[in-house]
Amino acid sequence: MTYNIAILGASGYTGAELIRLIAGHSSIQIKALGAFSKAGQPVSQVYPHLRHLDLPDMVPFDAIDWAGIDLCFCALPHKTSQEVISGLPRDLRIVDLSADFRLEDPAEYQKWYGNPHAAVEMQGEAVYGLTEFYRGEIRAARLVAGTGCNAATGQFALRPLIAAGVIDLDDIILDLKAAVSGAGRALKENLLHAELSEGYHAYATGGAHRHLGEFDQEFSKVAGRDVRIQFQPHLIPANRGILGTAYVKGDAQAVHDTLAAAYAGEPFIEVLPLGEVPSTRHIRGSNFCHIGVAADRLPGRVVVVAALDNLTKGSSGQALQNANLMLGIEETEGLMMAPLFP
Amino acid sequence: MTYNIAILGASGYTGAELIRLIAGHSSIQIKALGAFSKAGQPVSQVYPHLRHLDLPDMVPFDAIDWAGIDLCFCALPHKTSQEVISGLPRDLRIVDLSADFRLEDPAEYQKWYGNPHAAVEMQGEAVYGLTEFYRGEIRAARLVAGTGCNAATGQFALRPLIAAGVIDLDDIILDLKAAVSGAGRALKENLLHAELSEGYHAYATGGAHRHLGEFDQEFSKVAGRDVRIQFQPHLIPANRGILGTAYVKGDAQAVHDTLAAAYAGEPFIEVLPLGEVPSTRHIRGSNFCHIGVAADRLPGRVVVVAALDNLTKGSSGQALQNANLMLGIEETEGLMMAPLFP
Amino acid sequence: MTYNIAILGASGYTGAELIRLIAGHSSIQIKALGAFSKAGQPVSQVYPHLRHLDLPDMVPFDAIDWAGIDLCFCALPHKTSQEVISGLPRDLRIVDLSADFRLEDPAEYQKWYGNPHAAVEMQGEAVYGLTEFYRGEIRAARLVAGTGCNAATGQFALRPLIAAGVIDLDDIILDLKAAVSGAGRALKENLLHAELSEGYHAYATGGAHRHLGEFDQEFSKVAGRDVRIQFQPHLIPANRGILGTAYVKGDAQAVHDTLAAAYAGEPFIEVLPLGEVPSTRHIRGSNFCHIGVAADRLPGRVVVVAALDNLTKGSSGQALQNANLMLGIEETEGLMMAPLFP
Amino acid sequence: MTYNIAILGASGYTGAELIRLIAGHSSIQIKALGAFSKAGQPVSQVYPHLRHLDLPDMVPFDAIDWAGIDLCFCALPHKTSQEVISGLPRDLRIVDLSADFRLEDPAEYQKWYGNPHAAVEMQGEAVYGLTEFYRGEIRAARLVAGTGCNAATGQFALRPLIAAGVIDLDDIILDLKAAVSGAGRALKENLLHAELSEGYHAYATGGAHRHLGEFDQEFSKVAGRDVRIQFQPHLIPANRGILGTAYVKGDAQAVHDTLAAAYAGEPFIEVLPLGEVPSTRHIRGSNFCHIGVAADRLPGRVVVVAALDNLTKGSSGQALQNANLMLGIEETEGLMMAPLFP
Repeated sequence: MTYNIAILGASGYTGAELIRLIAGHSSIQIKALGAFSKAGQPVSQVYPHLRHLDLPDMVPFDAIDWAGIDLCFCALPHKTSQEVISGLPRDLRIVDLSADFRLEDPAEYQKWYGNPHAAVEMQGEAVYGLTEFYRGEIRAARLVAGTGCNAATGQFALRPLIAAGVIDLDDIILDLKAAVSGAGRALKENLLHAELSEGYHAYATGGAHRHLGEFDQEFSKVAGRDVRIQFQPHLIPANRGILGTAYVKGDAQAVHDTLAAAYAGEPFIEVLPLGEVPSTRHIRGSNFCHIGVAADRLPGRVVVVAALDNLTKGSSGQALQNANLMLGIEETEGLMMAPLFP
Repeated sequence: MTYNIAILGASGYTGAELIRLIAGHSSIQIKALGAFSKAGQPVSQVYPHLRHLDLPDMVPFDAIDWAGIDLCFCALPHKTSQEVISGLPRDLRIVDLSADFRLEDPAEYQKWYGNPHAAVEMQGEAVYGLTEFYRGEIRAARLVAGTGCNAATGQFALRPLIAAGVIDLDDIILDLKAAVSGAGRALKENLLHAELSEGYHAYATGGAHRHLGEFDQEFSKVAGRDVRIQFQPHLIPANRGILGTAYVKGDAQAVHDTLAAAYAGEPFIEVLPLGEVPSTRHIRGSNFCHIGVAADRLPGRVVVVAALDNLTKGSSGQALQNANLMLGIEETEGLMMAPLFP
Repeated sequence: MTYNIAILGASGYTGAELIRLIAGHSSIQIKALGAFSKAGQPVSQVYPHLRHLDLPDMVPFDAIDWAGIDLCFCALPHKTSQEVISGLPRDLRIVDLSADFRLEDPAEYQKWYGNPHAAVEMQGEAVYGLTEFYRGEIRAARLVAGTGCNAATGQFALRPLIAAGVIDLDDIILDLKAAVSGAGRALKENLLHAELSEGYHAYATGGAHRHLGEFDQEFSKVAGRDVRIQFQPHLIPANRGILGTAYVKGDAQAVHDTLAAAYAGEPFIEVLPLGEVPSTRHIRGSNFCHIGVAADRLPGRVVVVAALDNLTKGSSGQALQNANLMLGIEETEGLMMAPLFP
Repeated sequence: MTYNIAILGASGYTGAELIRLIAGHSSIQIKALGAFSKAGQPVSQVYPHLRHLDLPDMVPFDAIDWAGIDLCFCALPHKTSQEVISGLPRDLRIVDLSADFRLEDPAEYQKWYGNPHAAVEMQGEAVYGLTEFYRGEIRAARLVAGTGCNAATGQFALRPLIAAGVIDLDDIILDLKAAVSGAGRALKENLLHAELSEGYHAYATGGAHRHLGEFDQEFSKVAGRDVRIQFQPHLIPANRGILGTAYVKGDAQAVHDTLAAAYAGEPFIEVLPLGEVPSTRHIRGSNFCHIGVAADRLPGRVVVVAALDNLTKGSSGQALQNANLMLGIEETEGLMMAPLFP
């Protein structure tokens, strides 16, 4: 059986990544590509790397005929996303890659994103899209909210540890190193090659990064109490990749055992042998997440390092994994490609 | 039907790329991985990015049982390759990725590679592996010699033009920009990140690059007369990609028409509209080659630019494409993945 | 004696490079920094890397008191530059880094830049700023027009050869590889790290690059006849550097002798031994230009490769070198710093 | 007055950086360059970027006439350094850039470096070369031990805080991001451009990095009690730069005040306004260290970020700064060059 999908916001990096992945999928077909400023253009003009594909031209959103569309991916900026999704057919399955439906609490949404939510009722309906932890709900969901790419990385490293209580919940630090494609295709000075290639730095200092909203919500949920981590992201001169270094207090063996057990059956999460740590070059372009654990020389201190590709497992790969579940397709379909190395 | 293959020299970049591609192939299975210094190690240790795959451990070559192996890929250094291949079963299908069987004339081989050929009789048997131009011979071949990655790039840009005689055969210049993975995993100072990342330069000046042997042989063959091009490669701070800029004399429209006609039915060669030129970011990680043509302001002068991924279309992708033909599998099987962008 | 200077357009890369260089100059002092959008800001905010310097704040142009200013550097966009310079005191020495006064012929200016020149009379007054070839005129000049960075590179490689007539004047090809800072701080998609770092490509194909106007003017002048070269630039994933590979017809030894003789006394131009070619990593951050010559295997064909730093010798370093001459300071003052390697 | 110096180990990155810096120094002259494998070669061959300089050829160590040499820089690998230095004249001033004389306790040296120290008596004599904290001792010293580049970064961020007791001494984490030139010119797989450019990762996990020996020694000394920090370095795809992110517990304002006071008169240490953090692109190629402080959203938690150039302030610049002190020259001489941006 073949399912028909649409992608709204097809001209950003996550939209392009979705097309790349779906092009290799056996039972999903792209029926419509919606765009704002690039509407009217063929894909080969917007994305010359996809010129070999037989794809529909980019069209304005309202030119899409939703009859016959089984699922829609929304790869739009936050705020725009909730406005657009509000106007879509109520029975359409949706995987949203924006931040708009990640936070359950409207007050939390407003706190982190600055504007009141324009589709509060749908916010309640949405299922948080961290596949490995919400599989059942996602299968049954109409609207799935893709997670932040940093939020996914941090949760893969920490969530089972917080749930199991094997680490000190009041002293968790996540030092994260993000490659630049996670910042999107926005034209900003610090994303220019000349500025970034020999210039790495911390950003969103002081606990200002919006993905903290997701950490607060999810970690508190699994802990059954308030958990607030310290999270400091850095921008790194690489295209793809997130490396999250978590500093936790606990027993390294217990930490490793807990992670190994949590991900034992997972097709995409690889827990390395105790003492080994991952590199972003080993997951690039793939849906895999590698996690390593190392005991520090200081007793009771442990480092947990997680690496994934922000555009794949951190965003579009996760979105397709969720779509597979929602459509009743094998979860791994279209997602088992090996990383591109070097 | 499933075919069993072996890879000798599995620990270099082209070996790793072969595994990546075959991992996504529907009817080829890896039965044996042969290595020298890394024999005895599991793949997950040599290539952590392949740890999710269920692969045989790396073994010494003589530990491989060739019964039941349908085809062997040799990703060995030149000279070693001819010695190893001489010792393989005579009825084993072989795709060699080294330089050892590219040149038909033993004197030419010795001129470019410095040593007498150790398997002259097999040199005669080998078919040159530029798939788009040797399809019939490759289908029937036992031993196929993969082309040089630069040699492939230059030939995709120039071969139809030389064959058709639409350009001046005595004044062809190829200025080539090669990413660093084409130099392999060798430990050399100029391949270090610190030296290369802000240091690009010409190398093999004066017509010293060995791939000229292939250009001489192939271009002369299709022209029916001696053709000697001027070829100057440069090393560029990027991982994957070759961009060949050919300076030719002729009519731009005729040049474009000739290329468009030559590659009309080709699944992997895309000729861009006249006036557009390719970028390496649009073919990375894929088996596609993009070719562009532009007329210069000076009448009768034309620029032809070809871009491909040295490890895929320039090497391991080509090898798999040839293996597909030799085994009677659909030629594009396992090779239609979209490029990784960005 | 100390000279006072002003810089207009201090917030771009060439402005910043000027400040860097002048900060190490023994007898030039920065009195005023003029900017548009960033007027009112301290330098430490616009350029945190200069925060250790005691510099005047950035001010609007009309806030500058020209009394007491000995020389003004204009690092403005073309077209803006001619408008601003028209309004400056008529006796103020000016070094312009824009394209506005490079071309002597107003028609040529309009052809390449698209607009009629707004200060034609000053166009006639301006001296072309290629120091090594216009030293005398520059010493006496009031207005010096800095050259294009690509134009400088190509002229260093070719100008003595054309003047001496040791190469075929009707068959000169310049394949140029430019690092990204030469494109300035403009916010364009193809300058983003994510797009460029693994994506290099040709641009301005067909002889469309504006620096051709300079080549045409200067090469014709020294040849005493019309000379039109073929020039194809490429964008490379590096910050600083230009590598120009010139394909010429002549005798390699004569080419090398001519260049060696032409640059024998030059403090900044290094001609490498015949057969050696330069790398951008050996001139980065410096005012040096390295030139290499290699004979091709094809008789009568020669490759000349020149490397320089686009922001230093290609732009701001050249500007300071010219200012030194205009002010009667030692030409090399403030410019002898060694390249930054690695 | 002019001082004559020698450099042993002139063919590594720190040796080259020393030459770059000294070339711009007004009163220090290079009299001898000692090398192992590259002895006998002119500098222009080993370092083409220095070909404009008039330098002595590289010679074997024992060919150096020490009469008339005022000071010797040793840029040798550890262990080799102590052996070579043992054999130098006892009255020769020495600045050692290796690890050999950083640790005062022979047992600590053996613990971190694996071999017994071969010059224990000189180990006692050596002064630790962190200029800003050992100025008086360095002025009077005969043998100064340059610090580790990571050790310098961490100490600039943390040392005044530990000395002042404004942070919790039992809970200090230093997450460090190091550019690749800090690993030297060694030929290792993970330093290849192809491996590193899209592959960043943690290394020396578990508290295994040798610079911890320096942290332990120095932090305990200033605290007057044992202090053991948790230190996790990461390798980043950039040439130059170290960014250290320290996670400490205390009051942000007090932390900032303490650092601002400690470095108030320092020519090379810039403490940014509270809330601002540095980038490696703003210190590259210079002797400056930028330090920023930010309060986290979690009360009592503070992030301190320090950035410096590993080859300059982290190594060769520090060495020259110390040599200036030892020779009675102005401390900043030859070191005030502005960073190279971009």
